[in-house]
Amino acid sequence: MYNFPSKLLENAVNELAKLPGIGKKTALRLVLHLLKGDTINTDALGESIIRLRRDITYCKKCHNISDTEICLICSNLQRDHSIICVVEDVRDVMAIENTNQYKGVYHILGGIISPMDGIGPGNLNIVTLINKAAKGEVKEIIMALSATMEGDTTNFYIYKRLKACLSGRQEFNLTITTIARGIAIGDDLEYTDEITLGRSILNRTPYENTLVKY
Amino acid sequence: MYNFPSKLLENAVNELAKLPGIGKKTALRLVLHLLKGDTINTDALGESIIRLRRDITYCKKCHNISDTEICLICSNLQRDHSIICVVEDVRDVMAIENTNQYKGVYHILGGIISPMDGIGPGNLNIVTLINKAAKGEVKEIIMALSATMEGDTTNFYIYKRLKACLSGRQEFNLTITTIARGIAIGDDLEYTDEITLGRSILNRTPYENTLVKY
Repeated sequence: MYNFPSKLLENAVNELAKLPGIGKKTALRLVLHLLKGDTINTDALGESIIRLRRDITYCKKCHNISDTEICLICSNLQRDHSIICVVEDVRDVMAIENTNQYKGVYHILGGIISPMDGIGPGNLNIVTLINKAAKGEVKEIIMALSATMEGDTTNFYIYKRLKACLSGRQEFNLTITTIARGIAIGDDLEYTDEITLGRSILNRTPYENTLVKY
Repeated sequence: MYNFPSKLLENAVNELAKLPGIGKKTALRLVLHLLKGDTINTDALGESIIRLRRDITYCKKCHNISDTEICLICSNLQRDHSIICVVEDVRDVMAIENTNQYKGVYHILGGIISPMDGIGPGNLNIVTLINKAAKGEVKEIIMALSATMEGDTTNFYIYKRLKACLSGRQEFNLTITTIARGIAIGDDLEYTDEITLGRSILNRTPYENTLVKY
């Protein structure tokens, strides 16, 4: 369908079109935009992509993307290292950090169990999480995964693994929690799906707990 | 709003988010996709972008993107060099070439007159087009610009310039045409806007001319 007048152009379009959600038409539009701009901008873009993949490092403790061996959160002594929030990737860390509500540390799985995409437990950072729990220094593990089938499966798998690891060790006092599911702030009751609504009635909270303290 | 855990990550996201139609959220999604892939892929992407802008050349005759000094279309002696189709950019050339209906050559303006975007006639390849016409070797110039306000303005500007250049030179027999405006093949009459419909009635064509010859 496409007859490119130049190999350079074709190459750049094909490479950009490999990105998810970017087709050939969009890629061509982006490439023509880049051609109209300065060389310094395209150099910066190209180099930032190459350096990103080549030089990126992950925190040895939580597996988050980091410029240092131990990330800023894991090396922060002000934070509570006995509470671990388990998330899928760095976006979730950024989202939770933006709330300013969490003072524990994180553990990044690097994905969730999804047989359709060929991602099994072996592809995720689960063993290191179990090892952390086995040391007995963790009081609470908060599962903060997406409220999807894959997220629930991953939650259950990790829960089982943790239980197996801790069975017979009564001295360990580990709580496993999940973030609250319910009706989002600002949501209309009549448009909420029945599963969410049903769960939110089952898991109702004392009214005093919902009052924000100023 | 965004607290990136790594400068490398932040840098790549910011550079990608400069592209039109790509916001910070999309950029972060693309970057995380690249991080999951192989180094060889990100290297190819980054280098194709850098090389594109640094090494790209434009045809000396028609200003199209080309790997050679004179592009494949301009150097093709099978094509009719006395007919020039004036288009905005390389996408239009590719679109027209895909129809297999055109055997003349092209002239790429590199944009259209758009005061809102700060693009005036001086920013476009108009002088070289006038010079081609002034040599007297061109029989027809086909204006194939978008059917927008900017396209119409550009059409009119070039028409005026060509007329001024050719005035008093009766030996030159140059026709200036535009591609047909009308109802697109497959379009429903009742959903066509009144300007298009009105023009299509004014510029009606003999039925015999519309019969495709097999």
